[in-house]
Amino acid sequence: MIRTDILKSLAIAVALGGLSGCATVPPAPAAAPPPAMQYLYGSAEAAAASVQAYAALVAEAEGRAARRESAVLADGATLDAPRFADCGDKPLAALFDADETLILNGGYEYDQARRGGAFDSASWDRWEKTGTDKVVAVPGAAAALTALRAMGITPIVNSNRSAANAAESEAALAAAGLGTFRHGETLFLKGDADGKSAKDARRAAIAARWCVIAMAGDQLGDFSDLFAGDPAARRALAQSRAIAALWGRGWFVLPNPVYGAGVAGGWDEVFPVGQRWTDPGSKRKE
Amino acid sequence: MIRTDILKSLAIAVALGGLSGCATVPPAPAAAPPPAMQYLYGSAEAAAASVQAYAALVAEAEGRAARRESAVLADGATLDAPRFADCGDKPLAALFDADETLILNGGYEYDQARRGGAFDSASWDRWEKTGTDKVVAVPGAAAALTALRAMGITPIVNSNRSAANAAESEAALAAAGLGTFRHGETLFLKGDADGKSAKDARRAAIAARWCVIAMAGDQLGDFSDLFAGDPAARRALAQSRAIAALWGRGWFVLPNPVYGAGVAGGWDEVFPVGQRWTDPGSKRKE
Repeated sequence: MIRTDILKSLAIAVALGGLSGCATVPPAPAAAPPPAMQYLYGSAEAAAASVQAYAALVAEAEGRAARRESAVLADGATLDAPRFADCGDKPLAALFDADETLILNGGYEYDQARRGGAFDSASWDRWEKTGTDKVVAVPGAAAALTALRAMGITPIVNSNRSAANAAESEAALAAAGLGTFRHGETLFLKGDADGKSAKDARRAAIAARWCVIAMAGDQLGDFSDLFAGDPAARRALAQSRAIAALWGRGWFVLPNPVYGAGVAGGWDEVFPVGQRWTDPGSKRKE
Repeated sequence: MIRTDILKSLAIAVALGGLSGCATVPPAPAAAPPPAMQYLYGSAEAAAASVQAYAALVAEAEGRAARRESAVLADGATLDAPRFADCGDKPLAALFDADETLILNGGYEYDQARRGGAFDSASWDRWEKTGTDKVVAVPGAAAALTALRAMGITPIVNSNRSAANAAESEAALAAAGLGTFRHGETLFLKGDADGKSAKDARRAAIAARWCVIAMAGDQLGDFSDLFAGDPAARRALAQSRAIAALWGRGWFVLPNPVYGAGVAGGWDEVFPVGQRWTDPGSKRKE
């Protein structure tokens, strides 16, 4: 899990630092949650987007299962010319990231936002260990897993939660109403396979045993480790002809403006020069 | 268009105010765009989510057109028991919001973020008038409209842009590669029908002339004016049995964590008490 909340934390630090530099008020939590958290954890619109992503996954699953069509890139495939793993007569599965894909970690994000701090890996580890009854299912996820299981498609999780906390993550998924996952069978974590946080090795190990007809995640790394480069390059890759054809077909993306590789980029990367506008009624100079 | 960017603006104002209160440095733009803008305008993940939403719309359109199944709620329908408008032998159409649904307004948002200000309706009006060559299509939108037109389904826009700027909005949609829209025929704006910003009256006027088989938007108000209440109530409504069945079937939602009704809510609304966590390794007190 890549965390790029730095800007948000900087803004809060500047606000608090600026105030504490000229007054004796103690640091106080912001009046309201950051906008991206309001949207992801609190809005009807984000809930609808999640339900929609899972509806599309279930709608596509039957046909892909009948065609035994894998969604996992084959070893040596490229993003320009994707080829997919061989399904043979392997049992049917669908592959899911956990955090902000199957489960929402509002409990952790609440604590982080109230502290006014940035992502803290030690704190996150304590969340994995002790937050198991605080996670909730992403809207639409539980119904989708039920539908998949009824179709004979086994949900499998490929997460960067720690293998050391496997029992707690099994408990968290079950407590969120997502059913039974077992480490090493239907739950793969950081430390499994090659021990890295990149997920391709675990995906390959899973695809060696299962016919994975669909994948879902909130980060491009949940689909392939081949996505690379600066934000603009990644954004262009996601819309390239071969990859654009996968979204909503075999690859399903969940909204997450709160953290991750999608929350990055400077002014020049996010706003291409040719698309900028200067209000003719303002005094702002470029 | 409801703007609830207030928190973001407040944070910036507090940061700048705090600094300017005890030093003579001039207000400076933030080091990077706000996280929600990084995500929406700059990320591969948001682009993928948009492509996915449009892919689902196109995938569902053929069947809905064959069944002549309207996506517009009938007069007097409720969210508990939705009934849909009568298609009769009306021509086929699909209905779209414009801003952050068909087109991205990164040019305006860039200017607003660089100014460090909140939404400004006078500035937005100047954007409608002079930003026509700066808007870009939402990823996936242009291809979807092309596919719909090839199926004999006419794209229609229902937007809260001003009817006074109809010519400029027609130009903006065309410049973004979305084809021809004509005010009063395939483009409906604030000031049309009943003159209100709520969209039900315009939707009813459109559904009286067209069989609207799908709707897309970034706000629940793009689907029905019946969604109401605080953020938690709206979020529950969007996931209610009858409404959940519409997402990804006849209603298609695009991501927008930057502004709108989804960017709202205090700590209690966004983070239900039972889901909060306090890191046992921190000194934070609830």
